[in-house]
Formats: sequence, structure tokens, C-alpha cells
Amino acid sequence: MADMAARLSGIVGADHLLTGEAIGEDYAHDEALSNDPVKPAYVALPETADQVAQLLKTATELGIPVTARGSGSGLSGAARPREDGLLVSFERMAAILEIDTENHVAVVQPGVSLEDLDGKLAEHGLVYPVYPGELSASIGGNVGTNAGGMRAIKYGVTRNNVLGLEAALATGELIRTGGKFVKASTGYDLTQLIIGSEGTLALVTEAVLKLQPRLPHQGTVLAPFADLDEVARAVPKVVASGLGPLIVEYIDGLTMGAITYRAQLQLGIPDEVKETAHAYLVVQLESRTADRLDEDVAEVGELLSGLGAKDVYVLEGTAAGKLIDAREKAFWAAKEAGADDIIDTVIPRASLPQFMERVRAIAQENNTFVIGCGHAGDGNVHLAVLQKDSEVRERVLHGLFEAGVHLGGAISGEHGIGRKHAERFAALTDPAKVDLMRRIKTAFDPAGVLNPGVLFD
Amino acid sequence: MADMAARLSGIVGADHLLTGEAIGEDYAHDEALSNDPVKPAYVALPETADQVAQLLKTATELGIPVTARGSGSGLSGAARPREDGLLVSFERMAAILEIDTENHVAVVQPGVSLEDLDGKLAEHGLVYPVYPGELSASIGGNVGTNAGGMRAIKYGVTRNNVLGLEAALATGELIRTGGKFVKASTGYDLTQLIIGSEGTLALVTEAVLKLQPRLPHQGTVLAPFADLDEVARAVPKVVASGLGPLIVEYIDGLTMGAITYRAQLQLGIPDEVKETAHAYLVVQLESRTADRLDEDVAEVGELLSGLGAKDVYVLEGTAAGKLIDAREKAFWAAKEAGADDIIDTVIPRASLPQFMERVRAIAQENNTFVIGCGHAGDGNVHLAVLQKDSEVRERVLHGLFEAGVHLGGAISGEHGIGRKHAERFAALTDPAKVDLMRRIKTAFDPAGVLNPGVLFD
Ligand SMILES: Cc1cc2nc3c(=O)[nH]c(=O)nc-3n(C[C@H](O)[C@H](O)[C@H](O)COP(=O)(O)OP(=O)(O)OC[C@H]3O[C@@H](n4cnc5c(N)ncnc54)[C@H](O)[C@@H]3O)c2cc1C
Ligand SMILES: Cc1cc2nc3c(=O)[nH]c(=O)nc-3n(C[C@H](O)[C@H](O)[C@H](O)COP(=O)(O)OP(=O)(O)OC[C@H]3O[C@@H](n4cnc5c(N)ncnc54)[C@H](O)[C@@H]3O)c2cc1C
Repeated sequence: MADMAARLSGIVGADHLLTGEAIGEDYAHDEALSNDPVKPAYVALPETADQVAQLLKTATELGIPVTARGSGSGLSGAARPREDGLLVSFERMAAILEIDTENHVAVVQPGVSLEDLDGKLAEHGLVYPVYPGELSASIGGNVGTNAGGMRAIKYGVTRNNVLGLEAALATGELIRTGGKFVKASTGYDLTQLIIGSEGTLALVTEAVLKLQPRLPHQGTVLAPFADLDEVARAVPKVVASGLGPLIVEYIDGLTMGAITYRAQLQLGIPDEVKETAHAYLVVQLESRTADRLDEDVAEVGELLSGLGAKDVYVLEGTAAGKLIDAREKAFWAAKEAGADDIIDTVIPRASLPQFMERVRAIAQENNTFVIGCGHAGDGNVHLAVLQKDSEVRERVLHGLFEAGVHLGGAISGEHGIGRKHAERFAALTDPAKVDLMRRIKTAFDPAGVLNPGVLFD
Repeated sequence: MADMAARLSGIVGADHLLTGEAIGEDYAHDEALSNDPVKPAYVALPETADQVAQLLKTATELGIPVTARGSGSGLSGAARPREDGLLVSFERMAAILEIDTENHVAVVQPGVSLEDLDGKLAEHGLVYPVYPGELSASIGGNVGTNAGGMRAIKYGVTRNNVLGLEAALATGELIRTGGKFVKASTGYDLTQLIIGSEGTLALVTEAVLKLQPRLPHQGTVLAPFADLDEVARAVPKVVASGLGPLIVEYIDGLTMGAITYRAQLQLGIPDEVKETAHAYLVVQLESRTADRLDEDVAEVGELLSGLGAKDVYVLEGTAAGKLIDAREKAFWAAKEAGADDIIDTVIPRASLPQFMERVRAIAQENNTFVIGCGHAGDGNVHLAVLQKDSEVRERVLHGLFEAGVHLGGAISGEHGIGRKHAERFAALTDPAKVDLMRRIKTAFDPAGVLNPGVLFD
């Protein structure tokens, strides 16, 4: 142990290797619910890519499990370390290295937060459009989970917006993948393979991000519907309109109540509408000009009215901002309401009504409270499950995932498998595919030191 | 041999296994220039995914090299079989299985051509926006090469538009990856790994494609510039405008002459402009409404004038269509003009001027004629090299690739490495990366039967 600590602190410096009592509570968990915190044996705070590579080389040599940590805002337990392991925290590698306004790319270290990055990009009239609900999240963590968020319907997820990486391999080499270009056909796409691998293939030490012009005008439409089925049926029509919405979110009635109450937000919806509206659709548009935005907002409004909306509210700037913000904080509202778990199944978006029917049935059969909201345009449903009995909860979760997979979906749209769902992933996935993924894992990490217990059980 | 043939024809039926004289010339090559045709020992024409899986299982067992063939329009020699090998041609697996207008996806067999698919999608007001120059190309081949084309600047390349695959592994299993959803964070992204792998990892037996609403209005602006440097400097500004162009192509003066002459196309550009214009920029826009299109076209025109265009021509429907068509056929014009090789290096788009300077210098030093055009918005430069002496040509090609890689680019933007560039790929790529790719290859294909000689030399 002391020898290992000496080897590791020889790499990052004694001040930047934490052991024992010096390791704070924060390093023991991410934001996954019902997942017990575990303090690691070591926390290393590297400053350079070379240090990361050396840490990995040493870990492979000594057989120490390694977990990468960005901001620890993940929801799948993938940044929760092992008791006998090394946690590599990227907090000291948080620089924005370059904002290249000609190529529209940013080059950043993995520890940079979305919030810091967005602030800097705003100065240049540019935006990195991946916008998961938690802006303290780091780019390294986003790459780890293939983070999505509300704007994915227009701009795609992390996978679609990262052009290249520098990454440290378990064997100690530093490689560069991709670059400041939007496409290539030059060997296997290692960038794509590393994205979404939850720290099990390589540690990211730098990322090249694709930027977009920051459009100046946003407009938000809120439409209450009688029930979720109606919302679910409206979604494909909104997407098909060609209006290219920035956000298409659904919020069920209970969740809407909880998040607006928590945010002390008055949306001006009359009580008689609220009483009969069991589901809401939020559509946000953006545009280069105010005129076009107004036209598009009006068109969305008409479309939604025609699709059965009880009414259509065009939210003014601050109300819209507050509603989106409250929606982003839905996780905290669910947590405060006592949610025991959160899932984010993805299904073909046109199967939303069937999925919701199954959700209701499973909830009823198991006397469990299941509420939610989600990135409806992507078919990505976020459900909060309130059930204290862990056995019943397990049954409910399994039923929900099974229903999603049965409809042609996948366990997670953006939160990842992590530790929480590794067992379920094995149970619900074709063994030939899992075996292939394990062989790929071994190709990267022959000693199996990168995040054991995550993804594979 | 006879035994092998019996095994293979037992799978696809005697009528669908060709050997000896029954194997036509077409199966011996793709469209790569300066690459000698080679007839394979066997050509199998499977009809089902199961047959493909069985062919691979047998090939792995008997150690027969396997090459997949779509339409054979590839430019890197990746569909050129081995003399002792099996060519699996997908011509009998060319069905459009489903056009799902709710989820905006199409499910197709790999042999379907882009042309057939586009015809069917037009009936539904939808489009699969990947549009490489050769519409006889198959979806399987597009997946193999990660095909791009002119519209990639707006819609991305194959990688960004394929949501899922069914694929046969070398070991004989059929797996399904992804699905009718736009994102997931559920294990490694095998879809992305297979895309662009040029038939070296798995054979695609089905693909789920992301569709877009087919916008009704297109407008095309043609702008002659004094030289390529000016064009190259204009490109990032057009992309940065936020107008979201569908196409941003550059065409050098000589290529413009060749393709318009070949197409007997009169663009109405006065002779005095032609004489001093050594490079052209073509910008195409699309829109939901005619009014917005007109506004946007006018805005692009003003922008280009401000950036030094000698004039700005808004092309009418047919002239525009013909010019784009002629540009798509630039490869044939180059071939007829005696081009000995075509390359498609990709570089950061803002580095176009530096790259072009190197191209000129290399061409001059080696007394070689190098002309071209390209997907300027993506930094993807297509150059035709006219040099009969293969030693000098090799030197020129190496110089061009090296210049691209040196500027932070990659050998190929969309055509692939194939057989043609395998050696150069090895020479110009970090060995740690090539080794990693080889280990991934082995994870998929332990016996090494899938397209040996392609990608890795
Ligand atoms: C209120 C709230 C709202 C949220 N909303 C969304 C949402 O809308 N969409 C969404 O996608 N997510 C959402 N999340 C989840 C979370 O924000 C994302 O998963 C985010 O990507 C995590 O980033 P992080 O820096 O906190 O990563 P961490 O939790 O620290 O790590 C996440 C994973 O990435 C790995 N990792 C971290 N750094 C690196 C690195 N340098 N190299 C390799 N692997 C690394 C870790 O090992 C782990 O596997 C939300 C979370 C909260 C709390
Ligand atoms: C005039 C002309 C213009 C062109 N313009 C462009 C352009 O703008 N952009 C562009 O990207 N390309 C362009 N190309 C190149 C070519 O059209 C593309 O590479 C296309 O993707 C090839 O498709 P194909 O069906 O002909 O594939 P093939 O040439 O038959 O095969 C290409 C690769 O895919 C593999 N493959 C085929 N089917 C499968 C399968 N089912 N499973 C796994 N692997 C498979 C093959 O083994 C090979 O490695 C052009 C070619 C020509 C002749």
C-alpha cells in the first residue's frame, strides 16, 4: 500500500495524491440514487496528460482498479470508485486551451465544466450545443456518458459534437483521435468508441469540440394536453414539421406541479386548464431573426392546437428560461420528493404511447409511484420511481427496462449503464454482443483495470 | 477447392455461387484508379442475413479471405477481392424493408442503391440526406466507407445518419446494434465502430437510416474568385453565417472548364470573368418556404461579394441541377482526362489556403499536374493527380498526404484507406493507434478473414 502510494505520488506529486482521511466524502459517489458511497484507496489529481498516462501504466503494472471522475454529477454510479482503487479526478485539468473561431472548434481539457465553457463561447457568438441538465458536469464526464440533454433533438448528443480526443490508454500510451475536421474515413473511429464507454476503455485528456453559431432568438411554446398519449402522438408531428425545434420535452402533470412549485414559478395557466391537463409539451425554437422566430412560433402553436392541445402559451423570455431551468432541475425535485430511482430508457419516439401504457400498468401492479418527464423528441423517457421496498423496486425497474427493450429501445438514452445497471445490461442484451464488447474492452485494457464493475457485471 | 465450393454453394444454392469463368469482370475491381483487377475464387450472392452469417462462419473455419461488395463504386480498392478469396455481393439483398414515417427512419437491406431509396422516400416527402456523387452506390458500401458527399456540411456523413445495423460477425453470429432511436448510452457503440471499417470488422445485413423532412425549396449561388486562396478564406465565413448551407463546394478553374465542357453546360459567365477566375465557390441553400430561400440566397450573395467574389450568379433550377450533377461527375472527367490517381485528404477547413500552397509547390517540384474540387465546407479536398511515372506519382501522393496530416488532417475524408492507401496509413499513423486498431480487428475477426490487405498492410 505505502509502496503503491509512493509510486503514484511520484507521478503527480505528494500534494496531489490523497489517501485515507484526506479523501473527502464527495469522491465516494456520483449522483446516482440508491447507490452506496465507497471511498477509494487513492485519489490522484493529475495536471498533465503525461501524468494520466503514467498513472494508468502504473495501475496496469500493479493491478490497481482505476475510476475517472469529472464533476461526479453522473446518475449511473459510473464515477463511484472501488475501495481498493485509484480515483483519477480531473479537477486540475480544466483549461479551455483554444477557441478556434475559423474552424468553429474548441480544444479543452476534460475537467472544464459546461458552464465555464459556455461563458467563454458566448463572448465569441458561438455555442457548444450539448446541454445536459447539470451544467457543472465536465466535458470528460460528458464524453464518458455520451451526455445528451434537451437540445439533442436539434444538435445531437456528445457523440455528434466531439470531433477528436487525446486519450491515455491503460497500457500507458497517449493517442490522438480525430481532429479539427467533421469527418474522416481513415481507420476505425476511436473517438466514437471511447465516447459513452464510461471510463472503461481509456481516459480522456483533451477533447476537440464542434461549435455552432449562437443564434440570437429563442421562443418557447407550452401546451397542456389531456393526457400523455395525446402528447406522445403530437411529438412525431412536431419533429416532422421541418421547423427544426431546439427542444421538444414532455412533462407529466405531477412533475409539472412539483417543478413549478419548487421554482415558485407562475406560468399563468388557469386552474380549470391545470385540473384537466395531465401532461404538457414544451417546444422551444431558435432563429437567426426575430421575424422568422415569430412566424415559426405561431406555426408550432397552430400545429399543437390542431393536435389537441387544450391551449397554447407562448412564454416570455424569463418565464421560458425559468421553466426550462425548472425542468432541468426535475431530478432534484424527484429526489426531494423521495424518489428511490431514476431511469432514462430510450424508445422509438412513435412508441411513446405504448410505452407509457406499460409504465402505468407496471406501476399499478406493483403499487409503485412512477412519474416523469423527458426528451420526447428523442424518445428518451426519464422516470422517477418511488418505492422503498428494494425487491419490489427491482421488479418495477426490470419491467420498465424490459418494456423499453421490447419496443426496440435501449436501457439508457444518456445516463449510461454504470454500476447500477450492469447486471440488467447483461440480462437484457444479446450475449454475442456483450462478448464482443468484452473482447473490445480487452483490446484496450488487457489487465482490466479501467472501471471494473461498470458496464460489465 | 471443389470441397470449399460445395460448402459455400450448400449455403447460398448452386445458382448463387459463381466460380471460374462464370465470374464476370465487374467483380474484379471497384472504381479505384491505378489498381489492378483481381478475380476472386468464389462469388456468393446471398439472399438472407442467415446465409451471410453462415458464409462467414464457413470462411472462418476454412480460412478463406472474404470481401464484401456493394455496387463496386468505391475509390480505394476496398471491394477488390483476393485471388484466393470469396466475394460476397449484396445485389440480391436490395430491398427497402420499411419506411417508417412516424419515427422518420427507413430499414433497408445493404444492397439497396441510393437512387432507388431516394425515389421511394420522395413519395413520402422524406430524404436520406447522405448524397455521395455516385447514386448507384449501395447503403452497405456507404456504411463500409462512411460515405460523405456534398450535403455533409449540413447533414453530416453516413456515420451521422445510420442509427442501427444488423451485422454478421466473422464467427457466424448475427448481431443487432442501435435501433430506431437517435441516441443511447448503453454499451459501446458498435454501429459507429462498424461504419467506415471497409468490410474488415463485420458484414452489414440490414441498416436503420435516419430520415429528414424533404425541404421543397433549393437555391444555388455560383461565385467566381480570382484564386483558390480567396475561396478558401471565404469558406469559414459562409459556414459561420448561420445560414446552414446544404452545399459548400469549391471547384478550381481547370476542373470547372472540364466538367462544364463534358456536360455541355452554359452557365452564362462572361468570358472576361472566366479568364481571370481561377476558382469557384458553389453554395446551395434549402428552405421550407420560397420567401426565406430568396432572402437567404440574397444574403449569401452579398456575403460572397464582400469576400471578394468577382461576381455572383444565382443559378436557375435546371442550370443549378446540371452544375451539381457535373460536379458529381468530376471523377469521370478526371478519369477521361487521364488522371492516374484521385485523393480526398481532409484538413481543418481554415487550413485550406496553406494546404493549397503546399499542393502547388509539390506539383511544381515534381512536374505533375494536380487539379481538383472538393467539399470545401468540410475541408475535404479532392485532387486528381496526373503523372504516369509511378515512382514520381508515389512521391507526389506521399507529399500531399503528409502535408494534410501535418496540418492536422487525415488521409481520407470519405473514400477510405482500402488497399490503395494501407501502406501510407501505416506510415503516417501513430503505431500505438494502429496496434490498437489491429487488436480491435482481432476482437471481431479472430481468424483474420475479413478483407485482409485492406486498411492494414
Ligand atoms: C440535475 C441533473 C440533471 C441531469 N440532466 C442530464 C441530462 O439532461 N442529460 C444527460 O445526459 N445527463 C444528465 N445528467 C447526468 C450528468 O450530468 C451527466 O452524466 C454528465 O455527463 C456527467 O458529467 P460529470 O463530469 O459529472 O461526470 P462524472 O459523473 O464524474 O463521470 C461520468 C462518467 O464519465 C467518466 N469520466 C469522467 N471523466 C472522464 C475522463 N476524463 N475520461 C474518461 N472517462 C471519464 C467517469 O468514469 C464516469 O464513467 C444530469 C445530472 C443531474 C444531477
Ligand atoms: C463518380 C463517383 C463519385 C463519387 N463521389 C463520392 C462522394 O462524393 N463521396 C463519397 O463518400 N464517395 C464518393 N464516391 C465513392 C463511392 O461511391 C463510395 O465509396 C460508396 O460508399 C461506395 O459504395 P458501393 O456500394 O459502391 O461500395 P463498394 O465499392 O462495393 O464497397 C465499398 C466498401 O464497403 C464494403 N462493403 C460493401 N458492402 C458491405 C456490407 N454489406 N457490409 C460491410 N461492408 C460492405 C466493401 O467491402 C468496401 O470495403 C464516388 C464514386 C464515384 C465513382
